[in-house]
Amino acid sequence: MKRLQLVENIRRKKSLLCVGLDTDINKIPKYLVEEFENPVLEFNKMIIEATSEYAVAYKLNTAFYEAEGVGGWQNLESTIKMIPDDVFVIADAKRADIGNTSKMYARAFFESMNADAVTVAPYMGVDSVSPFLEYKNKWIILLALTSNKGSLDFQYLDIESKDMKLYENVLSVSSSWGDSNNMMFVVGATHPEDFKKIRDIVPNHFLLVPGIGAQGGDLEGVLRNGLIDEFGLLINSSRGIIYGSGARDFAKIAASRSKDLVDEMNKYIKY
Amino acid sequence: MKRLQLVENIRRKKSLLCVGLDTDINKIPKYLVEEFENPVLEFNKMIIEATSEYAVAYKLNTAFYEAEGVGGWQNLESTIKMIPDDVFVIADAKRADIGNTSKMYARAFFESMNADAVTVAPYMGVDSVSPFLEYKNKWIILLALTSNKGSLDFQYLDIESKDMKLYENVLSVSSSWGDSNNMMFVVGATHPEDFKKIRDIVPNHFLLVPGIGAQGGDLEGVLRNGLIDEFGLLINSSRGIIYGSGARDFAKIAASRSKDLVDEMNKYIKY
Repeated sequence: MKRLQLVENIRRKKSLLCVGLDTDINKIPKYLVEEFENPVLEFNKMIIEATSEYAVAYKLNTAFYEAEGVGGWQNLESTIKMIPDDVFVIADAKRADIGNTSKMYARAFFESMNADAVTVAPYMGVDSVSPFLEYKNKWIILLALTSNKGSLDFQYLDIESKDMKLYENVLSVSSSWGDSNNMMFVVGATHPEDFKKIRDIVPNHFLLVPGIGAQGGDLEGVLRNGLIDEFGLLINSSRGIIYGSGARDFAKIAASRSKDLVDEMNKYIKY
Repeated sequence: MKRLQLVENIRRKKSLLCVGLDTDINKIPKYLVEEFENPVLEFNKMIIEATSEYAVAYKLNTAFYEAEGVGGWQNLESTIKMIPDDVFVIADAKRADIGNTSKMYARAFFESMNADAVTVAPYMGVDSVSPFLEYKNKWIILLALTSNKGSLDFQYLDIESKDMKLYENVLSVSSSWGDSNNMMFVVGATHPEDFKKIRDIVPNHFLLVPGIGAQGGDLEGVLRNGLIDEFGLLINSSRGIIYGSGARDFAKIAASRSKDLVDEMNKYIKY
């Protein structure tokens, strides 16, 4: 998907919402497990049908599918096929390897799976990232400042002679590897105060923002400091939306939680 | 596998060799593709049979399997099942995510797939790594100093106030998350001069060393600076061993290349 189309979709749906399909068979409503041969796929289908009115993106964390082996990988592929064409699909895979190998990951997620974007870890540097950038109208979303407690271990380290934290250096160096039409960055909603500095370094890039909901991120702070003219933010919620109910109304609850989150965002956004 | 058993296997086989099963259907002998229903699995089977006399470990880079979709994931699982019990199995997956998600990756590689070890990226810090450490007799192998050109982008950054490079800080901080019975580190053979400093920080940990062969690493330098009493090194070769011939003798060639590499190592090792 091109940036122009993503921005148009945001304007049309009046939403920055990315719904995380982190589907764990142990957490979905029990009746699905009893009544359906493939309960995970049924769950995803019903969530997508109920929330695609509000979602401009879906993010599938590959871990939840890999944990179920071959059948899980099959569900990952099948779920992506069920997502409407006008919704941006993120394979949240956090991959990266030497160039020769990253090329295979790019093939997996962009060809075999046809996702619009894949999340990528920065530690291995330029040649681990560049093979993903060779695909037209595909995106990488590089980890910059993550939402978790472990983000404090290395990402805030002060880099000598650059007067920067490590995550700022990652943003600054890596933003030259691609541009704002094929690169986004992951920045957690748990660090709202850092969005100002981040916008000094990458004023025009989209940021994928996890950490709202279960992780306790600050939506208002993120929007106040992170929004740009072309929006530039995708706000993710996973557990907070999809696990709202363990009963037959789960999809309806997911829709109403999506609507609530979009309404909450829209207090701070002009379309 | 316990460390004690790994060390015993090394002593018995007189080898530090890890063979990388980075099997790309476009690079295996053409006759396999013509004659077998599942040429990748046949290739792996023949390579394993021919090289397990020399290999103390096999490393399967997940990218090569994921690129083939569901069938690839099936081959990854089936290949691991074919590896003899006394050979250490590394899922070279370079995963890591927030704690809740890393737990699912641990389930994928340690339960569903029954690998002995999984490679993990450090950027997301402690809670992205610790779920893997909760499994008994399983290992994580954390990226410290990788073998590729992109290792120069961030891993050598000087960390203010610590008088360390980033990769040294990663070693120093993360080594307290586990111990030398459940953690190893990836250190590329393309940086032989750094093994001395690394041994000051992690004197007793095993290091997984890629970068020999196609990437041009320095075997002698690695062994001179990295060996410890209990060996502490697994030396990986992938393309250099498995793609030695495109003809029917490919497995024989892989065996002889394995033997040559082991003989080369053993100039510098006392068992």
